[in-house]
Amino acid sequence: MNGAEAVVATLRACGIEVILANPGTTEMHLVSALDGEPAVRAVPCLFEGVATGAADGYGRMAGRPAATLLHLGPGLANGLANLHNARRAATPVVNLVGDHATGHKRFDTPLESDIDALAGTVSGWLRRCTDPAAAGADTAAAVGAALTAPGQVATLVLPGDVAWSAGAVPGAPPAATAPPHVPDAIVAAIASALRSGEPAALLLGGPATRGPSLRTAARVAAAAGARLLCETFPARLERGAGLPAVERLGYLPEGARAQLRGLRHLVVVGAREPVSFFAYPGQPGRLAPEDCRVHTLAGSGDDIEDALAHLADLLPPSAAATVTESRPATPTGELDGETVAAAVGALLPEDTIVVDEANTSGLWLPAATAGVPPHDWLTLTGGAIGQGLPLAAGAALARPDRPVVCLEADGSAVYTLSALWTHAREGLDITTVVLANGAYAVLEMEYDRLASAPDAPGPGPARRDLFDLSRPGLDFVRLALGMGVPATRATTAEDFTAQLAKALAEPGPHLIEARVPALFGPRRHT
Amino acid sequence: MNGAEAVVATLRACGIEVILANPGTTEMHLVSALDGEPAVRAVPCLFEGVATGAADGYGRMAGRPAATLLHLGPGLANGLANLHNARRAATPVVNLVGDHATGHKRFDTPLESDIDALAGTVSGWLRRCTDPAAAGADTAAAVGAALTAPGQVATLVLPGDVAWSAGAVPGAPPAATAPPHVPDAIVAAIASALRSGEPAALLLGGPATRGPSLRTAARVAAAAGARLLCETFPARLERGAGLPAVERLGYLPEGARAQLRGLRHLVVVGAREPVSFFAYPGQPGRLAPEDCRVHTLAGSGDDIEDALAHLADLLPPSAAATVTESRPATPTGELDGETVAAAVGALLPEDTIVVDEANTSGLWLPAATAGVPPHDWLTLTGGAIGQGLPLAAGAALARPDRPVVCLEADGSAVYTLSALWTHAREGLDITTVVLANGAYAVLEMEYDRLASAPDAPGPGPARRDLFDLSRPGLDFVRLALGMGVPATRATTAEDFTAQLAKALAEPGPHLIEARVPALFGPRRHT
Repeated sequence: MNGAEAVVATLRACGIEVILANPGTTEMHLVSALDGEPAVRAVPCLFEGVATGAADGYGRMAGRPAATLLHLGPGLANGLANLHNARRAATPVVNLVGDHATGHKRFDTPLESDIDALAGTVSGWLRRCTDPAAAGADTAAAVGAALTAPGQVATLVLPGDVAWSAGAVPGAPPAATAPPHVPDAIVAAIASALRSGEPAALLLGGPATRGPSLRTAARVAAAAGARLLCETFPARLERGAGLPAVERLGYLPEGARAQLRGLRHLVVVGAREPVSFFAYPGQPGRLAPEDCRVHTLAGSGDDIEDALAHLADLLPPSAAATVTESRPATPTGELDGETVAAAVGALLPEDTIVVDEANTSGLWLPAATAGVPPHDWLTLTGGAIGQGLPLAAGAALARPDRPVVCLEADGSAVYTLSALWTHAREGLDITTVVLANGAYAVLEMEYDRLASAPDAPGPGPARRDLFDLSRPGLDFVRLALGMGVPATRATTAEDFTAQLAKALAEPGPHLIEARVPALFGPRRHT
Repeated sequence: MNGAEAVVATLRACGIEVILANPGTTEMHLVSALDGEPAVRAVPCLFEGVATGAADGYGRMAGRPAATLLHLGPGLANGLANLHNARRAATPVVNLVGDHATGHKRFDTPLESDIDALAGTVSGWLRRCTDPAAAGADTAAAVGAALTAPGQVATLVLPGDVAWSAGAVPGAPPAATAPPHVPDAIVAAIASALRSGEPAALLLGGPATRGPSLRTAARVAAAAGARLLCETFPARLERGAGLPAVERLGYLPEGARAQLRGLRHLVVVGAREPVSFFAYPGQPGRLAPEDCRVHTLAGSGDDIEDALAHLADLLPPSAAATVTESRPATPTGELDGETVAAAVGALLPEDTIVVDEANTSGLWLPAATAGVPPHDWLTLTGGAIGQGLPLAAGAALARPDRPVVCLEADGSAVYTLSALWTHAREGLDITTVVLANGAYAVLEMEYDRLASAPDAPGPGPARRDLFDLSRPGLDFVRLALGMGVPATRATTAEDFTAQLAKALAEPGPHLIEARVPALFGPRRHT
């Protein structure tokens, strides 16, 4: 058995079922090994950012990692932005990167580069396999590292000669490790703070935004009379009718500060103290009021479920407040962010996995969908745009039994457009809505917020050119059809509602280009 | 003047006319500064790999750098693959990367990452500006570093607070520095070897494949009775009728070894000793025969032109052999790599800038175009695919007076497809030919070359799925139209010739999808 075969046999033994792949020559023995092990399904991606984003989506929904297969430093580089998002989501990912044969590296051939430096920026665990005899064990260690709570990107670099050399053996699957227990004294102190009667809130993040943790957190909040918040960009938020109502922290610092105003206690659970996404001149980064104490119940890698259960036990028994089922009326008239959101809220099927990279045009989505039956909401955890279409692919691969709706801004969609081809190739049940406003509207907004010197130049050619996607307009119907995905365009709320209903009713991928006005900057669609 | 204004004023003072940009919030003050300085033209790119690839193309053709403008670590990450190619091409690039405000970094907000580690993998020069008072000088230093012979990627990281803070001044343009002189003794020793009468060749690379160096090298070769070779992937090869005939070293090691067989002296000029692109089990990496002496006349950063002139002076006066004008006949019948090449050879306008990322389908292009009037040939220097469409954009921005023909493989075209939008936005005179074979044919070839154990599994599902771009087929006509570029599809040699003639005759961007069979693997277009 050669090193490549040991890697693949170990992946299978560890329960890895999907490998999102864009291999090259240095990975050819891994392709050959995959040919001998069809239980590890190789899914082709036409760009590495699609592979890594799909691995993120897969891991968020499966709770166990997919593998990637990337070609050398440049292949890894193309996948880094979505690995960055996966890192921020604490998604388990086994990131396999091929390298030149060990003896070949000294020649500094054209594709040689510093893979380890690149991988180090996104990986919680990084190892270079140097011996075929260790390839199996190294692969098992990568899987174990990826699964270390709350989850992380584990990168294994596999040189060509390690892959092709004999003497390898499969590695033993890693033993499951329990996350660290939160000390009782910490829980007791927080219980005491919550019993004070002073204004309090819980801020959920990481694994606390789903499953039993979410439900227990809601009971704690009810018992303490505390508000229930979650971080701005949750990796996976379970929400909808019958589930706890969780208020997401706002993106803009002034909005988030308003949400936190008056609080005396903020209990962070699987999250960190809230700070503004970006810095602005003269503004502090911290968002909580100065006289608000921030208590950390549990870090994202701790045993959150246990800590919350313990906390609930120290408070009066209480039922969690849950959301009542409601849907917006089917919208009519002009198509804009608000009517798109209403149509989504009116039609979203129960159990949908929603991938939200709608950016400014998505402002109304959370409210419009709050009362629809239970669903998952996946967001842009790391701020690196180009995540949505790949994330949707991975989510659909992990959960073929559930519909996926991908709400995608036009500027972001272009980044990793070829994910649509993977949607088509794999026949994934994904309805993509491109909210096409013809602009980088968020930058129009940020430009207007510039607190620069009074003598700063006014808007000029750079602003006019750099934020405008409408000269020429991007035609997402043609782009989707070119990638093999059926597509339509909607310009009224009635059109959009009808097209969305049809796309949701049919299996397989669809794309709807929803032409909406930009919230900020000049009105470009006329 | 704030830091951002000093950066932009310095760029202008240093003669930087184009900035290829995909900014975000942390770069907003730079956008504002560009608004105040229209002489630095901001060209929008819808993906950072387009910006960096275009900066490479610009630098190769202008001989001076363009700047980029990238957003934080993920933006840089998206641009790394084409910066890798630029690094291998030794292209001058001023790579500007915005960062969070200095005081904000400790919060480890979602978009925080290790920019310096990423930038270090591609940059010959890297500096983080920490003081607005130094922003101008740092920018000038970046320009100077980018221009250091033979050229390099110079990365300047600009934190938000440095950009927005006052107290900055423009930097003084750097003084030009002369490349190091090659010692006379080295030149004399090589002259002596070339006078030995033993079989010899010159291998040109870097700046030696163009301009006076190329012509002098050809005189040297003629005087010494030596062959004239160049590296496999030249950054910019001047070629065509009336110019020296230069034989490119082959990509596959067996081919390159055959080219070098029998040589006793190989004089490398601006290149390095040839090695195989990839390692294969049991094969040495070095390509020259064991009894061939490799002499380095000049490294790519040395004064190559002077060293060659000196070498020519030590050899008998001789005229360079030049290529006679000839064009292939207009092809008819089936459209394949050979007839595409014939049509290109028949029609290529004089002075065209050819961007070649045609990969396996481009096998016949060099021969078919050898005798057309002078033109430049730009290749994939670093092996990181997705270079062609952006490179063409940058070349066209640098030389709006010359036609650009971009010969592009389908798999590579998908990587940075949105470069087509920049072609359209800027009205660039680029004719893109996508050689669409529906496959990663080079990987089909490499799979067949696998020298693995006799018990290696045969082709299975991974090979069948991972190398196949035909299920569904990519429709480049729709994809191009979706990006705003007029497009047609050719399925016969006659179609293709007519469409190419029309596209070349009209200004502005065009795309032709040339449906060709794959050279390796199953025949997919039926």
